[in-house]
Amino acid sequence: MEKVDGRRARGDQSRRAVLDRAMQLASTDGLEGLSIGRLAGEVDASKSGVAALFGSKEQLQLATVEAARTLFVATVIEPVREHPRGLRRVVALVRAWLDYSAGRVFEGGCFFLAASAELDSRPGPVRDAIARAIADRDSYFVRTINQAIDAGELPGCDDAEQLAFELTSLVETANSRSLISGSSVPYDRAARAAAARLTACGADPRVLASAGLR
Amino acid sequence: MEKVDGRRARGDQSRRAVLDRAMQLASTDGLEGLSIGRLAGEVDASKSGVAALFGSKEQLQLATVEAARTLFVATVIEPVREHPRGLRRVVALVRAWLDYSAGRVFEGGCFFLAASAELDSRPGPVRDAIARAIADRDSYFVRTINQAIDAGELPGCDDAEQLAFELTSLVETANSRSLISGSSVPYDRAARAAAARLTACGADPRVLASAGLR
Repeated sequence: MEKVDGRRARGDQSRRAVLDRAMQLASTDGLEGLSIGRLAGEVDASKSGVAALFGSKEQLQLATVEAARTLFVATVIEPVREHPRGLRRVVALVRAWLDYSAGRVFEGGCFFLAASAELDSRPGPVRDAIARAIADRDSYFVRTINQAIDAGELPGCDDAEQLAFELTSLVETANSRSLISGSSVPYDRAARAAAARLTACGADPRVLASAGLR
Repeated sequence: MEKVDGRRARGDQSRRAVLDRAMQLASTDGLEGLSIGRLAGEVDASKSGVAALFGSKEQLQLATVEAARTLFVATVIEPVREHPRGLRRVVALVRAWLDYSAGRVFEGGCFFLAASAELDSRPGPVRDAIARAIADRDSYFVRTINQAIDAGELPGCDDAEQLAFELTSLVETANSRSLISGSSVPYDRAARAAAARLTACGADPRVLASAGLR
C-alpha cells in the first residue's frame, strides 16, 4: 500500500505541476496553444508521462479550466466568504476580484476572460466548461448582492442581476484595458465607478471606504 | 497602362477578398491562427499569390488589424458623425457600437476585444497595432463626450475619460457575455445601464430614448 500511495502522491504532484504551467500558458497563449507535448517540455517530463496523467489534449484543456476555477475560488471566493453577508461581502468581492486581476495571478490577467474571448465561437466541451464557470461566478455575485438587498443595505437597488452585470463590466474592462495599455489607471477607474454605482444604490459610504472603494 | 491598371484592380480585389476572410477567421480563431497557406486555401488562391500580396504572416496580421479598424470606422464612426455634435452623437455612438457587436459584423463579435484578449501578453508589432486602434477608439469616445459636456448637455459629468471608460465597459461586457451565453439579454442590460448613467449626468431623456437607450 505504501508503495501505491507513494506513486499516487507523486502522480498528484506531477499533475499539479503540469496544471500550474498549463494555466499560465493558457492565460497568455490560449487554451488552444496547450498540448501534451508542449507541457511535457515545459515541466521537464516525458510526453508519455503527461499523456498518462491527462489522456487527450481536450482532457488537458478541461483539467486546466477546472484548475483555474479552483484557483479563483481559493483566491477570491473563499476569503470573501469570511466577510459577513450583505454589503460588506459585496464590496469585499469587488475588491478581491480587482486585486486578483491586478495582481496578475495569471500572467495574462483574468483566466476566464481570456478563455471566453478565445473559445466563445468554438462549440465543444471546453467552451461549455468555460461558459459554466462564468455562469457560476455570475450567479454567486447575484446571490451576494441579493443578500445585501434583503438586509436593506442597498435600498436603491431592486435588480441584483443588473447590478452584478454592471459591476462585472467594470472589473473585466479594467482587466482588459490594463493588459493592453500597460497602465493600472483602469483599475482606479473601475473602483471609482463601482463606489459611485453602489452609493447611488444607497450603500453606506463607510463600508465602501473600508474596501478602498471611493 | 490599361493592362497594368487591370492587373492592379485584380490585385486590390484579391487583397480585399483575403482580408475579408482573414478578419472573420481572426475573430473566431484568433490572429495567431492566420497563415498565408490557410488563407490561400480559404479563398481558393495559390499560396504564392497570397504571399505576393502580403509577404509575411506578420504583415498579413497587420493588414487584417488595419482592415478591421477601417471597417469599424465605416460601420460605426462614419454614420455617428452624421449626428450633430453633443449628446446626440454620444448616444448615437453607444447605440451604433452595441448594434455593431450584436449584429455580428464579425462572427466572433467585436474584433478588437477578441484581438486584445489574444495578444495583450505577446509583445510585438501586431499587439502594438491593436493597442493603438483601441486607444484611438477610446480617444474618439472621450472627445465626443467632451463635446456634449462643452455644450452643457451632461451637466452632472466633469470627467469624460471616466464616463467613456464606464460606457465602454458596458458595451464590451455585453459583447463577451452574449457570445459565451448565446443570449441577447446582456445588450439590453448594457443599454439600460448606459441610459441610467447618462441620466444621472443630467442627459435629456428624450435624446436617450431617440437612440433606444432607456
